[in-house]
Amino acid sequence: MTRVSVTGIPQDSGAPVRAGVPEHGRVPKYYAVRILLTELVDGLEEGQTLPTERDLTERFGAARETVRQALRDLLLEGRLRRRGRGTVVAGPKLAQPLSLASYTEGVRRQGLRPGRTLVDLRSWPCPAALAEELDLSEGEPVWHMERVLWADDERVGLESTYVAVARVPGLSSDFDPDSSFYAFLHERVGITFADADERLETVLATPREALLVGTPPALPMLLIHRVSRDGNSRPFERVRSLYRGDRFSFTARLSGAGPGPA
Amino acid sequence: MTRVSVTGIPQDSGAPVRAGVPEHGRVPKYYAVRILLTELVDGLEEGQTLPTERDLTERFGAARETVRQALRDLLLEGRLRRRGRGTVVAGPKLAQPLSLASYTEGVRRQGLRPGRTLVDLRSWPCPAALAEELDLSEGEPVWHMERVLWADDERVGLESTYVAVARVPGLSSDFDPDSSFYAFLHERVGITFADADERLETVLATPREALLVGTPPALPMLLIHRVSRDGNSRPFERVRSLYRGDRFSFTARLSGAGPGPA
Repeated sequence: MTRVSVTGIPQDSGAPVRAGVPEHGRVPKYYAVRILLTELVDGLEEGQTLPTERDLTERFGAARETVRQALRDLLLEGRLRRRGRGTVVAGPKLAQPLSLASYTEGVRRQGLRPGRTLVDLRSWPCPAALAEELDLSEGEPVWHMERVLWADDERVGLESTYVAVARVPGLSSDFDPDSSFYAFLHERVGITFADADERLETVLATPREALLVGTPPALPMLLIHRVSRDGNSRPFERVRSLYRGDRFSFTARLSGAGPGPA
Repeated sequence: MTRVSVTGIPQDSGAPVRAGVPEHGRVPKYYAVRILLTELVDGLEEGQTLPTERDLTERFGAARETVRQALRDLLLEGRLRRRGRGTVVAGPKLAQPLSLASYTEGVRRQGLRPGRTLVDLRSWPCPAALAEELDLSEGEPVWHMERVLWADDERVGLESTYVAVARVPGLSSDFDPDSSFYAFLHERVGITFADADERLETVLATPREALLVGTPPALPMLLIHRVSRDGNSRPFERVRSLYRGDRFSFTARLSGAGPGPA
């Protein structure tokens, strides 16, 4: 019943707990099946097909619904993927750097082909909260551009960008939505991307988001909020980027700018 | 049926989709209830108690199970919290900086009292994968220290630290587990924390983790993997930190070290 962590040291050692946190032996039945399933998956290569639900039911001596729940967990976590009618072992999650580089650049560095499909592009009167974040006047026109993000032939995310129409008047006419917005800003509009504040959290996909990204509903997603500033420290865009939690991770290198250990 | 985003611009505008992504009118029934529930929660203050399930069932004209599913979603996302037998409106998620500062420091900056409870501390023979990451010999003793993390009176996370026994021989005798490990390393062992690589992803809580952190099972969690290096660029620890996805977000400031827009 132990689970081997990435370090190789079991994390569920079953040892008595020292400091008053109760630990008892009740493990949900589906979780015992999940552990068996994880062991099976660990022994297969990426892309290999799993036995059918019926075979797994027999192999584990478990009810079909129990096997389904364990499969669902590993699908949500990105260990397994659906392919046609079968279920196959997934590759590692993409590791996207948290950096000023764009989605386009991050995906290319991992050897995949970035793509974007326009869902919506229109101008709206700027609401108060956005006006404050972007240093605009309430009610002035802002673009909302929404794009589905692709990596190779797979939909992996959904991005909403908000930018003042006054700063990028030609967005709807001059910009190819299946290209890098930052390259466009830099080359065609003359906006240089100098720094940004980001906040990252996990949320559940809404039915609409699940439909657009092609994920199961209520899949845990990684949501990044970003406000970017130009070379004059002036905010120019707010972005809401949603990535499939089963396909993405984010990396950062932290270095000694901090106050030291604490 | 529109949902107002943080910017104030509706994200579910219901408009026809431009670029071939199918969008149809089917919204699961529970999601319609979830939208009504979200509007109700938006009108309440932090800490206010929600009407009972029975009241909500009547108010929304929905089945009890439908109301329950909508409540569960908002609990998982951190909009609501259980308090005793009732359900109350939650405050905003904690916003922990992704920086070299410790958990201790990050929580204090948000005006909360950090705490840690020891779950496990023992030495193990270093497995191959960990030996490679920490530049150790396979089989040499490493500490595994596991602690539950607290903010005020609430359990919010679970942290596993792996460090060579040779580098910190007195860990089990000299270190107070309810204190900052980095302060201990700095002041008592003379290890200076210079830089680190981090990787952040979302995973589901295992039954054991849910029990230790006191969360519902299968709550989406934020998992951070960290390898830290000292002033001589020598790796000294590997950390696996798991934070409640309904209570934590992470912030980063990105600045112009990158290659510019791409």
